Amino acid sequence: MGWNAMNVMWAISSEIDKEHGTGYQARLKNWIVSAEEKGLTVAGALTDAKGNRSLRPSEQPDPDTNLRVVEVRDDGIVIRGAKLMICGTAASQEIFLLPGGIYGEADKDYALACVVPRDIEGLTIVEATRPSDRRELEDTADVETPDTGVTQGWLLFEDVFVPNERVFMCQEAKYSAKFIQYFTANYRACIGACVGGQGDVMIGASVLMARANGLSAKTFADKLTSMSINNTITYGLGAGAIALGFKHPSGSYFADPHTAHANKVMVATLPYEVKRLTQEIGGGIVETGCMPSYKDFTNPQYGHLIQKCLKAGAGSAESRFKAARLSEWLTIGAGVPGCMHGGGSPDGAKLVVRATTPLEEYANYAKKIINIEEEIAEPQKKLKN
Amino acid sequence: MGWNAMNVMWAISSEIDKEHGTGYQARLKNWIVSAEEKGLTVAGALTDAKGNRSLRPSEQPDPDTNLRVVEVRDDGIVIRGAKLMICGTAASQEIFLLPGGIYGEADKDYALACVVPRDIEGLTIVEATRPSDRRELEDTADVETPDTGVTQGWLLFEDVFVPNERVFMCQEAKYSAKFIQYFTANYRACIGACVGGQGDVMIGASVLMARANGLSAKTFADKLTSMSINNTITYGLGAGAIALGFKHPSGSYFADPHTAHANKVMVATLPYEVKRLTQEIGGGIVETGCMPSYKDFTNPQYGHLIQKCLKAGAGSAESRFKAARLSEWLTIGAGVPGCMHGGGSPDGAKLVVRATTPLEEYANYAKKIINIEEEIAEPQKKLKN
Amino acid sequence: MGWNAMNVMWAISSEIDKEHGTGYQARLKNWIVSAEEKGLTVAGALTDAKGNRSLRPSEQPDPDTNLRVVEVRDDGIVIRGAKLMICGTAASQEIFLLPGGIYGEADKDYALACVVPRDIEGLTIVEATRPSDRRELEDTADVETPDTGVTQGWLLFEDVFVPNERVFMCQEAKYSAKFIQYFTANYRACIGACVGGQGDVMIGASVLMARANGLSAKTFADKLTSMSINNTITYGLGAGAIALGFKHPSGSYFADPHTAHANKVMVATLPYEVKRLTQEIGGGIVETGCMPSYKDFTNPQYGHLIQKCLKAGAGSAESRFKAARLSEWLTIGAGVPGCMHGGGSPDGAKLVVRATTPLEEYANYAKKIINIEEEIAEPQKKLKN
Amino acid sequence: MGWNAMNVMWAISSEIDKEHGTGYQARLKNWIVSAEEKGLTVAGALTDAKGNRSLRPSEQPDPDTNLRVVEVRDDGIVIRGAKLMICGTAASQEIFLLPGGIYGEADKDYALACVVPRDIEGLTIVEATRPSDRRELEDTADVETPDTGVTQGWLLFEDVFVPNERVFMCQEAKYSAKFIQYFTANYRACIGACVGGQGDVMIGASVLMARANGLSAKTFADKLTSMSINNTITYGLGAGAIALGFKHPSGSYFADPHTAHANKVMVATLPYEVKRLTQEIGGGIVETGCMPSYKDFTNPQYGHLIQKCLKAGAGSAESRFKAARLSEWLTIGAGVPGCMHGGGSPDGAKLVVRATTPLEEYANYAKKIINIEEEIAEPQKKLKN
Repeated sequence: MGWNAMNVMWAISSEIDKEHGTGYQARLKNWIVSAEEKGLTVAGALTDAKGNRSLRPSEQPDPDTNLRVVEVRDDGIVIRGAKLMICGTAASQEIFLLPGGIYGEADKDYALACVVPRDIEGLTIVEATRPSDRRELEDTADVETPDTGVTQGWLLFEDVFVPNERVFMCQEAKYSAKFIQYFTANYRACIGACVGGQGDVMIGASVLMARANGLSAKTFADKLTSMSINNTITYGLGAGAIALGFKHPSGSYFADPHTAHANKVMVATLPYEVKRLTQEIGGGIVETGCMPSYKDFTNPQYGHLIQKCLKAGAGSAESRFKAARLSEWLTIGAGVPGCMHGGGSPDGAKLVVRATTPLEEYANYAKKIINIEEEIAEPQKKLKN
Repeated sequence: MGWNAMNVMWAISSEIDKEHGTGYQARLKNWIVSAEEKGLTVAGALTDAKGNRSLRPSEQPDPDTNLRVVEVRDDGIVIRGAKLMICGTAASQEIFLLPGGIYGEADKDYALACVVPRDIEGLTIVEATRPSDRRELEDTADVETPDTGVTQGWLLFEDVFVPNERVFMCQEAKYSAKFIQYFTANYRACIGACVGGQGDVMIGASVLMARANGLSAKTFADKLTSMSINNTITYGLGAGAIALGFKHPSGSYFADPHTAHANKVMVATLPYEVKRLTQEIGGGIVETGCMPSYKDFTNPQYGHLIQKCLKAGAGSAESRFKAARLSEWLTIGAGVPGCMHGGGSPDGAKLVVRATTPLEEYANYAKKIINIEEEIAEPQKKLKN
Repeated sequence: MGWNAMNVMWAISSEIDKEHGTGYQARLKNWIVSAEEKGLTVAGALTDAKGNRSLRPSEQPDPDTNLRVVEVRDDGIVIRGAKLMICGTAASQEIFLLPGGIYGEADKDYALACVVPRDIEGLTIVEATRPSDRRELEDTADVETPDTGVTQGWLLFEDVFVPNERVFMCQEAKYSAKFIQYFTANYRACIGACVGGQGDVMIGASVLMARANGLSAKTFADKLTSMSINNTITYGLGAGAIALGFKHPSGSYFADPHTAHANKVMVATLPYEVKRLTQEIGGGIVETGCMPSYKDFTNPQYGHLIQKCLKAGAGSAESRFKAARLSEWLTIGAGVPGCMHGGGSPDGAKLVVRATTPLEEYANYAKKIINIEEEIAEPQKKLKN
Repeated sequence: MGWNAMNVMWAISSEIDKEHGTGYQARLKNWIVSAEEKGLTVAGALTDAKGNRSLRPSEQPDPDTNLRVVEVRDDGIVIRGAKLMICGTAASQEIFLLPGGIYGEADKDYALACVVPRDIEGLTIVEATRPSDRRELEDTADVETPDTGVTQGWLLFEDVFVPNERVFMCQEAKYSAKFIQYFTANYRACIGACVGGQGDVMIGASVLMARANGLSAKTFADKLTSMSINNTITYGLGAGAIALGFKHPSGSYFADPHTAHANKVMVATLPYEVKRLTQEIGGGIVETGCMPSYKDFTNPQYGHLIQKCLKAGAGSAESRFKAARLSEWLTIGAGVPGCMHGGGSPDGAKLVVRATTPLEEYANYAKKIINIEEEIAEPQKKLKN
């Protein structure tokens, strides 16, 4: 997210500079160079709280539902509102704030891009909860949950001041459309690799479960191959979107929007099938959360009976327990990938695919092949009587 | 489960009686009448621990991996082993134990059916854990989790004595095949209605989320209709399996196996798409577990900021919180239906569909239509040189 | 079609009689009894030419686009217009004409039901053409095409007189809605069996091709099982729709509309997958129309070379030729089932599913489970400024 | 095909040269330069008749089932056998013959690559037939069939002499595996663009049909977008396979096999859905071949009635006729893309995906994440008692 943010803002700032001479690109360059020198980890934050989906930001009953500029000072800006479900803030030192939508002039206060330290005055970050995350807090966490982390933060801004040298867009609403176009194209090309990699771990967990259940992984060759194909589609289609992409005059590279957004639709579909197959291969103890806790597993009175039940094929009872927990975590627990709405909804992606599909050109192909020469036009709207 | 168990055992006991004069059916009748008089709730328990999937019960390193008869006395039997992932034991008074597989003579000790009180000496029951179930134990449970329960128990038998009047099958291995055939046919016809109903709640939760997000449910008419069609398929195909079923000479009714097992494959597939659509309609806070806890929601310092973020369309911030939690629970939490392996695996169901598809008859249809008169036979096995 | 027509008109005529005393049901009974005595084969004709899909019948530039009553005389009616794509007219002696849509008062002349001999004065019937149907006219037809027939007629009525005793609905527009509801419910329950049976022939053809190619049908067990499941879904869901149906006061039986229309959506989807698998199992000569003609096969100069190429596994070169032609015919030729629009479009079926899905009831389930007590209502339409 | 053949043979000939000093690459270069100078059109021919699928080429009852070297002379080779379903021979001047499988030493005579003029002595070419191709021979062909051609030839070789300068592989069996690997990787990357383009024409035909039926193309926006996404997947995934590909030391470029073969599976699946949607949008006259012939359309007695029926929305009755014929041709006629087995079967592609999916590596990912340190190995084969 952070690097995509910089890549896109590099291009957008150059466009704004060209017309308005704002000097945004120079500021951005300074900050990037400085961030690299310090070795900063940077999260990117785009999604606003949004509020009522039928209303624009400025029409919301509460104008702070989306992050906005509440004051422009000589030395910087004051911002208020919320960015939600921001991945990786817990592990980052700075947060790159980006416009979360396409704004018109009425919503220009929401067109803002800047970067803030994570511990800045006036910013409250609340971690989200996830299914099975309480397990991480128990002393059996090592066995019950994987050795990896998921973090999604809600960023609540109460009049936070951002000095000018950290501001790269401020009220230039008309550039928000291009920002979203560039940003989503790259994001949706890349997220295919992200969910593809998660899917590869599901393949691995399924191999472990098959063997722990006493079966060869070969028994499930068809299913494992289907999983691999699904993972390859989102990864390879993302690579295709990038290969079909273009270079912006500023030097930034962007993926082909049509292909990237088609990929987002796959990203919001195929991983569910991969998860389904993980549950199918793993068996009942994977699917339905049908396994006792590790506290029961080690209970002095009846734990040995549970262990007898869990020892089956390759590996120990404990390894089978762990592999089952991993599969559960990957498919109905905290490890479920944010493939549906992360980086925007598939319905939004379909709108882009629709807009970038040249229907008239294709209709002309068809007319040419079958020798239709007259115009076949859209019907005119019927007038209401 | 309980009623299906009785219905099937009614038929099987009559078959055993006919050949062996065991008097099982009379015993069963006595117990059923008595259970009805007392108004008992009865769970059915079929699935064994199974152990190594490549070995038969008697071949397992530990012979107690599956529930078995360890002693036949004049007045009853002693049983040992485990039945796992048994739904509803927490809410039942008695448990109907059933053969969990098709057994040959070598495994005849595993061919057993009887009924035991839940609190019988020598039986330990351990509840399974589920994603997000720790939330049920917190004082915010009313808001964080739905007002319903899921219970899956592991039943661990250590030399439990069952008196003869409660025993309905004991070592008659050859009847286990028919038992499994009858039992699964009915189970897999009916489970379609079960997951269909869960899917209807997902439709309802999606309607709530759409409106709470500020949108009309009509926006998602296509998706809601797809969900409804999926739910209708598993429900209606189950009804079809029953309509195409048959009456056993004993008076029991059984669903058509071919149709019922085809339904099981759908039951293990379609609900995943319904869940996917629930996440798609609900938006990001539903999918990724991207919502803070209710403790944060009511935090005196920053809770009001979270509430501002959550208030969007119809209803209060709290209702939106609840609807999102419900959708999460239904799709990646404890409420995920046991549609994959509950009542047996889809791969097992496919084996039945395969066995009940008359390939030669269909090949003859094809030959007749295209006028092929010679035999088109399966190739003979190549002899290895 | 014919019997469904009679079953539905039996109910509709009783409803019209009850309110208007028209005596339609008695007429219908007389005709049915007489038709049975004569052993008549009867086709049913519902679909009109329709014209511009955005205009109602009476709004069409040409009012004869749909079949209509142009004159009501004392002794009968005169009808004009067209019924298209009517299956089985070539093989029938009489044709049962039915209302093709739901009509309001403005379109009442289109609300008509009657029965006419196929060779009646003023009726022109034109057979439709199909891919590969020219093969049926060649002297190699026995080998190139299956021994079965497809017939779809266009019925063009130019002022045809129908005497009163053959008229069962005439301008009673308000009953057309119920007619369509009843008719489509039964039709769409039954069409599942129709395409299921066609799919079974595809299974048979695939078995033949596998063996003729030199492989065991077992090689394709997974694919054949998938085909069988798909065929079973449309068949069994149709049976479910009928089992869940109801008895009309007139004595007619009707399938459950919700289930039947869900089945229509499957009917318009699953057979395509069955056809795809038929092509996948059969190999290249099945899929792409990549086989020479039988004239080439028997050519004195090079026919023997083609025969050498075609002889592979079980059976003769000629049997493999026939099996490949059958698979081609079933999947990209004249034998393609009219599963998409036959009996109405899947989009029309989805509208019924949508209308019969009780969204508010399901929303209330969800509210109850998660303890939401306030109303979560549809948003009100925004007023345009 | 032709260019892919040259690109692959360039690499293979360099590999053979390196080990055997055959001079194949120099010969190939001479021929390519000469072909370019003359502006030759070249078809590529790979698929053999194959015969019994369970037997290797040399095991076939008829050794000529696959194309083979029957004599090696000083000045060239003599070849005999058959290459089937070769696209584009009718339009080409020369044919590049390629090894059709992976051969061991026993089958070395089948490992051959050379180029022959299409009209060479001893080569008989028989065109395949296709559904609806008889229409092309009628005088209404302009209206009934699209203005494009499909050609698939059977190439029957009876002792054809090929001089050495046109031979690029002769009995070097061990290079056939690499040849197939390189050839299929590129072919299956590129075929995605081929079927994607055909799918774009289906979008165009659907737009025409919607409008000709009287509806806006917008009515079907969801379906058209789905079609576009499907077309984009096969196109973009092919682009991805190429982007992820590699450069051979000889200078040839090859696509990534894993991604390319995953694409082949999509190519054998997604176009069927695009065709299904074409039929769904187009309506009944598109799907079922339910339209009279153009001879009927222009019949002096009743043609005007058919024309009345066909005139509906945008454009003339004749344009609607043509658009319907085009949609029929694209989906159940001669224009059906050879997406299933063209370039090899999807089952073959799945074998490659399976072989190139690193299961152990993925299992290690899973083990690492969930802290399993012991080995979880494949079960050993049970010894038969």
